[in-house]
Amino acid sequence: MTQQYPSALLEKAVAEFSSLPGIGQKTALRLVLFLLRQDKDKVERFAQTISEMRHKIKHCTVCHNISDTDVCPICSDARRDDTTVCVVENVQDVMAIENTQQYNGLYHVLGGVISPMDGIGPNDIEISSLAERVESGKIKEVILALSSTMEGDTTNFYIYRKLAKFDIRLSVIARGISVGGELEYTDEVTLGRSIINRQPFDGRQ
Amino acid sequence: MTQQYPSALLEKAVAEFSSLPGIGQKTALRLVLFLLRQDKDKVERFAQTISEMRHKIKHCTVCHNISDTDVCPICSDARRDDTTVCVVENVQDVMAIENTQQYNGLYHVLGGVISPMDGIGPNDIEISSLAERVESGKIKEVILALSSTMEGDTTNFYIYRKLAKFDIRLSVIARGISVGGELEYTDEVTLGRSIINRQPFDGRQ
Repeated sequence: MTQQYPSALLEKAVAEFSSLPGIGQKTALRLVLFLLRQDKDKVERFAQTISEMRHKIKHCTVCHNISDTDVCPICSDARRDDTTVCVVENVQDVMAIENTQQYNGLYHVLGGVISPMDGIGPNDIEISSLAERVESGKIKEVILALSSTMEGDTTNFYIYRKLAKFDIRLSVIARGISVGGELEYTDEVTLGRSIINRQPFDGRQ
Repeated sequence: MTQQYPSALLEKAVAEFSSLPGIGQKTALRLVLFLLRQDKDKVERFAQTISEMRHKIKHCTVCHNISDTDVCPICSDARRDDTTVCVVENVQDVMAIENTQQYNGLYHVLGGVISPMDGIGPNDIEISSLAERVESGKIKEVILALSSTMEGDTTNFYIYRKLAKFDIRLSVIARGISVGGELEYTDEVTLGRSIINRQPFDGRQ
């Protein structure tokens, strides 16, 4: 049985919210009823912000990260090392790496990973623009920072072949046991990689 | 450390979504990035729907349920029994009871329950308008269908005293073990109420 709503406007708003990922009908109804209890001005600002954001946000023409300007603040920051490019899947990954405060180079946001199951091929993501950036000459190292999944590994390998002809260093972020992680609870594959990729130890962590 | 966003517009949109109940910053970011990938028309429709809903939805002048019209479809339905009124806390409760298809009377939506802890007194919810409806004469039975909580019970008792002077039947929905519920997993208070409020049994369920 489909849910009966006391108002067509309410039903329409619930339908819009339930079209968002991870939001079911009950949650959508709760959100809509919450907005109904708020000031008209506040709800208007909410709606305006969504509309404005969709129309005005751009993608950086260099790294394809989300940006308010044609070239994003990271790409246009003269203090950053423009000879190093870190390849990530999406915007959240850029934010996660920035949060570590351990990286001072630039980024290249693919906008996805190769995934034949989802119909995403190499031409659907920003791989050829990466090759063009490398070809233009300044870049000395490309760091692959994709998720450690089959799709991530496939994309890493495709990029490896695509960039093989250029004289650059290609590296991949370390896989191993998490900092604070207990050995006995680490899965075997990760633990195996940790051992194979062991690092020289000088007494400091 | 506060999260750095690559775009001020993105940050503003994430802030708006995180102001919704149950939506944290990470979920908000995921929703905003989802909307960024959608067609401009679709996002515009989403924003428009929210704005329109807040400006146009009314509350029924009779039962205070959400409505597109001054009097809601339930209150204006001549086939419904207008001598019976079911008192509920909110819109979701009306929808839940309508879903049972077991009730053909009208509703009265309080818009909350008495809760001194949250600073909600009898005058903050639609109790006096309920007394006015009863006073106007047509109503023969008022059914209390509030949640079985301390606040619900307090509100039931307040309404009981408020309506005591009127010649109507006042009833409360049954509390007992759920249909399909197993006896040994039912809490003692509920099970006790089930026994006290036992019903005559004629061989049919």
